[in-house]
Amino acid sequence: MSHNTFGHLFRVTTFGESHGVALGCVVDGCPPGIPIDAADIQAELDRRKPGQSRFTTQRREADEVRILSGVFADDRTGGVQLTTGTPIALEIANTDQRSKDYSEIRDSYRPGHADYAYDAKYGFRDYRGGGRSSARETAARVAAGAIARRVLPGEIIIQAALVQMGPHAIDRARWDWDEVARNPFFCPDATAAAFYEGYLDGIRKDGSSVGAVIEVVAEGVPPGLGAPIYGKLDADLAAAMMSINAVKGVEIGDGFASAALRGEDNADEMRSGNGGGPTFLANHAGGVLGGISTGQPIVCRFAVKPTSSILTPRMSVTRDNRDVDLVTKGRHDPCVGIRAVPVAEAMMACVLADHYLRHRGQVGKPG
Amino acid sequence: MSHNTFGHLFRVTTFGESHGVALGCVVDGCPPGIPIDAADIQAELDRRKPGQSRFTTQRREADEVRILSGVFADDRTGGVQLTTGTPIALEIANTDQRSKDYSEIRDSYRPGHADYAYDAKYGFRDYRGGGRSSARETAARVAAGAIARRVLPGEIIIQAALVQMGPHAIDRARWDWDEVARNPFFCPDATAAAFYEGYLDGIRKDGSSVGAVIEVVAEGVPPGLGAPIYGKLDADLAAAMMSINAVKGVEIGDGFASAALRGEDNADEMRSGNGGGPTFLANHAGGVLGGISTGQPIVCRFAVKPTSSILTPRMSVTRDNRDVDLVTKGRHDPCVGIRAVPVAEAMMACVLADHYLRHRGQVGKPG
Amino acid sequence: MSHNTFGHLFRVTTFGESHGVALGCVVDGCPPGIPIDAADIQAELDRRKPGQSRFTTQRREADEVRILSGVFADDRTGGVQLTTGTPIALEIANTDQRSKDYSEIRDSYRPGHADYAYDAKYGFRDYRGGGRSSARETAARVAAGAIARRVLPGEIIIQAALVQMGPHAIDRARWDWDEVARNPFFCPDATAAAFYEGYLDGIRKDGSSVGAVIEVVAEGVPPGLGAPIYGKLDADLAAAMMSINAVKGVEIGDGFASAALRGEDNADEMRSGNGGGPTFLANHAGGVLGGISTGQPIVCRFAVKPTSSILTPRMSVTRDNRDVDLVTKGRHDPCVGIRAVPVAEAMMACVLADHYLRHRGQVGKPG
Amino acid sequence: MSHNTFGHLFRVTTFGESHGVALGCVVDGCPPGIPIDAADIQAELDRRKPGQSRFTTQRREADEVRILSGVFADDRTGGVQLTTGTPIALEIANTDQRSKDYSEIRDSYRPGHADYAYDAKYGFRDYRGGGRSSARETAARVAAGAIARRVLPGEIIIQAALVQMGPHAIDRARWDWDEVARNPFFCPDATAAAFYEGYLDGIRKDGSSVGAVIEVVAEGVPPGLGAPIYGKLDADLAAAMMSINAVKGVEIGDGFASAALRGEDNADEMRSGNGGGPTFLANHAGGVLGGISTGQPIVCRFAVKPTSSILTPRMSVTRDNRDVDLVTKGRHDPCVGIRAVPVAEAMMACVLADHYLRHRGQVGKPG
Repeated sequence: MSHNTFGHLFRVTTFGESHGVALGCVVDGCPPGIPIDAADIQAELDRRKPGQSRFTTQRREADEVRILSGVFADDRTGGVQLTTGTPIALEIANTDQRSKDYSEIRDSYRPGHADYAYDAKYGFRDYRGGGRSSARETAARVAAGAIARRVLPGEIIIQAALVQMGPHAIDRARWDWDEVARNPFFCPDATAAAFYEGYLDGIRKDGSSVGAVIEVVAEGVPPGLGAPIYGKLDADLAAAMMSINAVKGVEIGDGFASAALRGEDNADEMRSGNGGGPTFLANHAGGVLGGISTGQPIVCRFAVKPTSSILTPRMSVTRDNRDVDLVTKGRHDPCVGIRAVPVAEAMMACVLADHYLRHRGQVGKPG
Repeated sequence: MSHNTFGHLFRVTTFGESHGVALGCVVDGCPPGIPIDAADIQAELDRRKPGQSRFTTQRREADEVRILSGVFADDRTGGVQLTTGTPIALEIANTDQRSKDYSEIRDSYRPGHADYAYDAKYGFRDYRGGGRSSARETAARVAAGAIARRVLPGEIIIQAALVQMGPHAIDRARWDWDEVARNPFFCPDATAAAFYEGYLDGIRKDGSSVGAVIEVVAEGVPPGLGAPIYGKLDADLAAAMMSINAVKGVEIGDGFASAALRGEDNADEMRSGNGGGPTFLANHAGGVLGGISTGQPIVCRFAVKPTSSILTPRMSVTRDNRDVDLVTKGRHDPCVGIRAVPVAEAMMACVLADHYLRHRGQVGKPG
Repeated sequence: MSHNTFGHLFRVTTFGESHGVALGCVVDGCPPGIPIDAADIQAELDRRKPGQSRFTTQRREADEVRILSGVFADDRTGGVQLTTGTPIALEIANTDQRSKDYSEIRDSYRPGHADYAYDAKYGFRDYRGGGRSSARETAARVAAGAIARRVLPGEIIIQAALVQMGPHAIDRARWDWDEVARNPFFCPDATAAAFYEGYLDGIRKDGSSVGAVIEVVAEGVPPGLGAPIYGKLDADLAAAMMSINAVKGVEIGDGFASAALRGEDNADEMRSGNGGGPTFLANHAGGVLGGISTGQPIVCRFAVKPTSSILTPRMSVTRDNRDVDLVTKGRHDPCVGIRAVPVAEAMMACVLADHYLRHRGQVGKPG
Repeated sequence: MSHNTFGHLFRVTTFGESHGVALGCVVDGCPPGIPIDAADIQAELDRRKPGQSRFTTQRREADEVRILSGVFADDRTGGVQLTTGTPIALEIANTDQRSKDYSEIRDSYRPGHADYAYDAKYGFRDYRGGGRSSARETAARVAAGAIARRVLPGEIIIQAALVQMGPHAIDRARWDWDEVARNPFFCPDATAAAFYEGYLDGIRKDGSSVGAVIEVVAEGVPPGLGAPIYGKLDADLAAAMMSINAVKGVEIGDGFASAALRGEDNADEMRSGNGGGPTFLANHAGGVLGGISTGQPIVCRFAVKPTSSILTPRMSVTRDNRDVDLVTKGRHDPCVGIRAVPVAEAMMACVLADHYLRHRGQVGKPG
């Protein structure tokens, strides 16, 4: 990962600020011949789009994606638009910018936001909506992820869900992937989702915010993806998820809970499988051993902190170092973790696509 | 991070297997003129070295480092050995290899180890001591970290400690950095350390193992290190720590606990500081906002799973897919997390050194 | 250099095809606080723009650049638009596409073009105007180069010129940099330029084409830029120039002529300088020794082959492997080398900006 | 290419100085299962080794290579040592160092050498034998190249030859690859080789030196290797060759001569081939179009300047800026181009291996 690029063979470079002209990405290294059109990408962007329920920011953005390059259709492709193997540039114009909402914080640092850090680094900043530090950047990731999904073999299924809101975890016994599409929280537990409605309404009315935990699972991943030692699949996933706005922790499989286990309980036992590879009797490892996929589901979780854009006044300072009490007005998410769910899927897809191609490069087709 | 290299300007490439001829690293991009000799590196290696107490593997390795290149001394340097700006190659010979210890597992996959994953990826593997997947590789990281520390300004202090063994966390109220050097667990809580002695003796006698949580803290880091979006300081730290053997989770600041907080509690408030920058009233963020250091201490924690090398038989399969019950003999660590402490410091040092140089490249001297 | 990105700290990623929606680039790693607006970039693009004389392709493209991100202006910046340190995305829409011009060559491979190679690599291709292989991509380089120039200290002056057209070299004794802006060939020798007018008219009327040699010189470069061994300044320049369409050779300083010299003649002698550094008595080395700048002018030359888009029928084959005789109609450059002159300057600027930042990262400010 | 690493999937990092403890390389990303032992690598090193005829430096170096990691043999591999897919570290100890030979130039800058440039960059330098700037580093390249050759399919044949010494070019009509092994100049023209003996004896006795031109050819390369735009095969070759010590120019196919051609002559015509792909009727392009291999032989040439280590006194300056006349004693090559021949093959092999794996990653198996 360099400043604004991640991936080695499937490389994603993103650009854009919250209130600039446009944001977008360039996806380089995509294999040729993959069918993709703007509607495919749009469908995934629409899942992340703000303003779809009262539980996300009311900023209205069409988030309409344009493909600028890297695809081609003619009668030889049957009229289907295919990737050509050259860089795919995607652009999403900013339309609902309302810069004036932010004018009052141009001189102060919002606590818990990147304002001070950007100023300390660069000497000044585009304060409109957080500029480059805005979670709006994640739209570009979702767009790239839509391509990455299509690079991967069809048997790989990537799904994410919200598994905790504030202190309230779901009951994993009630996990139902179908439920995720039925509630505004991407929650796989219908009972928890029903509870979250009232809970988050309360938070929202308080002008407050809460954190969340997101889990993303990739099923059907062949064994062998990942590369020791600094290209470990879990190390790349950790970086990918930690790079999402407001994420403060990442774990694979049992994660932090594994610290409390004994070796007998943690080691996933195996029995002979009928496909040649072993059948695992547990998945404490979350599908990754030694940084390499084992063929089990890859399970990754991350914690999202509550946004600091709240209505309760907070102590802060101005750019010229005077004390100030600050209220962050504007349109915000009471639980930014919700919209991180499609972003999590996108990042998983991008990391897997990259490792799929890297493995094919070094070793040949995995499987 | 690519396969066996990490960092952009301060780049570390490691090589070597547990039972090969030697392991080591090449550190590229190190600034010139930095005093370093083998003894400096050796001192840090000795902290990680096996066999220093009954609580770590009894494998005997001198872990003696040789500097092959990249340094120079003559009368003009006052006889002091300085880095020249060219790649510094470090070599640590393997001496106590006892390959026969491992011959019985050449045909079977140890549960919870990378054995199957390596075979699935590469088609075969160097099974001696885990080959490349052995934690012995971390010696090379510690050696590189010794150089990285010297690249950083002197006011940056990096320290790590074990803060949980199995399910037993320390009492943070008793935290004393000086205590870390006084017990074989790198534990900052003397009372917990005393408890761990008996606890781990029991684990060891059972032929079992336990996990741990390690915390690494960097103080004195200037604000401005890190780079949005895919070069975020915390994203690079997450990858760096997750790449350490047996690590299953990484968090920054409050980490997973921040999911349960409300915005009012999570946002670190500020008051005007006397040095120009703000004074923070809390550090839930762990010193990083928007991927950029804030000048507060950088706090990173990671979970280490228990090693699967235990004496209790575990169900597994052979390379030719037959069921087998496996006991992992050999010399192992009852709590591999202990020796991860100096590795954590090394990885923090390497990541910070890289970002220090990257910042200086893009923006000029930080501070 | 990876597929569509070059540079380490000053990184340029380009995208776009000749007849797609748009082309452009993302410049990542640019230092903050540099004044830049679209007009600055446009001025350099206009030098490369087609259709400015009868000696370049008559395709009409406005080549109008839009800055999508990475800049900011407010009253605190005095209304001046400054780089923010985040990625700068530049977009140039394709307007005069006339795809039908190329429909007849969709089934055949133009000799001397990349048509067959693209098909062999990717299985199919965007044949419109050469798709990604079109020299139109160089507009993105020129745009990036406009930013790169501003990253470099003001004392660094980068200029390029055409020094040979077909077999006709200029007389270097008549070299006058001011002349370059006065003729449509970017030629520093007025007499040669006058000759080229008639010569190239003849070539053009024949429906033929000729090659050229371009020389690019950077003056005022401080000593110390470049990095042994695989980041040598001349190695990066060689790659940068060779990546320009139709370039078949690159040389530094005396280049191929140095093979015929003896050591006495080739070694640039030195005398003590008054600024501390030596004064060189010659510049056979072209300003680079051991891959590092010496403070002398950096002199780089490259050969551009004649375009294969000519009116004389050439033997070729179709995609389905039948013989065909092919004439390349459409609007083409009789000497594509001419428009490579601003591209050469841009590539020199990008390479130097990258090395300037890399040096500052590793060693501190050069000079 | 970064400071001391080149390649993306087949990555080579080299280290070491002329008179340090050892030099070597780490080859990362090598596919697993490739038979390689030290003798294979040694055979190629021996071709580059100094002191093999009176026409190369009389420094005596065994150049004995040790493989430190990345290979494994047991009865399952039939006792054959195979690459494991993990980094292969190679070490070559420096034995005949004679540092005192160089003590007299520690305070002065040899004209035409990197001495001043290194000092200007780093503030001081390892002056013994040129330190990192010594051509001794190329031994590491040759070692890496021996591995790269084995990564490539067997039908790819890479050979290099000296085609010009001083001003004296060979007669290409007499080209015989078998001749290359029969004379100390790697010259494919027996008549020229005979002439060079006397010629170079004269140069040597004068204490002078001459330049050379080397040509390297890869036959059997499948079409499709290389990647637009900044991963062009010829751009990577240009950088690879230009990074070799003393190289001042690189060309592909007709190279600089193509500038003088007309489009009709330069475009390589095609006729339908019997293998599906076209048969080319000429190879002005040197096997690369649009940066991608065409299936024709890849032809690359580079110019090597005469070494500046000569017995004729040259004007120079000291480190403290005093005038001095300098004679470079020690053991040197009268024509350093000779030993660049195996280096050229190695660099071609490394670049092709990298592109072979990159192509397989993005597109699948080439051919």
